[in-house]
Amino acid sequence: MSTLAPLSKEELNSALTQLSGWSVKNGKLHRQLQFASFVEAFGFMSSVALVAEAAGHHPEWFNVYNRVTIDLTTHDAGGITTKDVELARRVNTLAK
Amino acid sequence: MSTLAPLSKEELNSALTQLSGWSVKNGKLHRQLQFASFVEAFGFMSSVALVAEAAGHHPEWFNVYNRVTIDLTTHDAGGITTKDVELARRVNTLAK
Repeated sequence: MSTLAPLSKEELNSALTQLSGWSVKNGKLHRQLQFASFVEAFGFMSSVALVAEAAGHHPEWFNVYNRVTIDLTTHDAGGITTKDVELARRVNTLAK
Repeated sequence: MSTLAPLSKEELNSALTQLSGWSVKNGKLHRQLQFASFVEAFGFMSSVALVAEAAGHHPEWFNVYNRVTIDLTTHDAGGITTKDVELARRVNTLAK
């Protein structure tokens, strides 16, 4: 396992400018998404699950019907790292 | 849409005796599950998603890595109904 350091405030703010829909909430990258239906929401989650498993980095997420809330943090590093930024980017691509 | 009534306290307690692992929390049927890995946790969620969509009744759920937390309520009825009990039963079968 690599030891990733949490992003500095400057690095995080810079990353956020390119992460549409994401903010920092409770020290985690946070995004809420809404879909047309449960089928679309869970289809999206399935896509993210595959990407997350392949990356070895997993989201904290909540779903009710057509809504999905995602929080990203790197527990080993104790904060938001490039792993989270990368997963957030992939989420945005999959949510399009 | 049928208009289901929330279960009475007696009906709910009776149902809970046959729903291993479930309790009532914040007025919803509640269960936490733990799996060996994210793959197993999300595989379980995928199974539940298919059952839920087929039943037209969906969970509120949270996942982080190998843990899944499920809350069931029937919003239209304003409480826990037979729909929730039935979905909880299916969850228990799928979680075995």
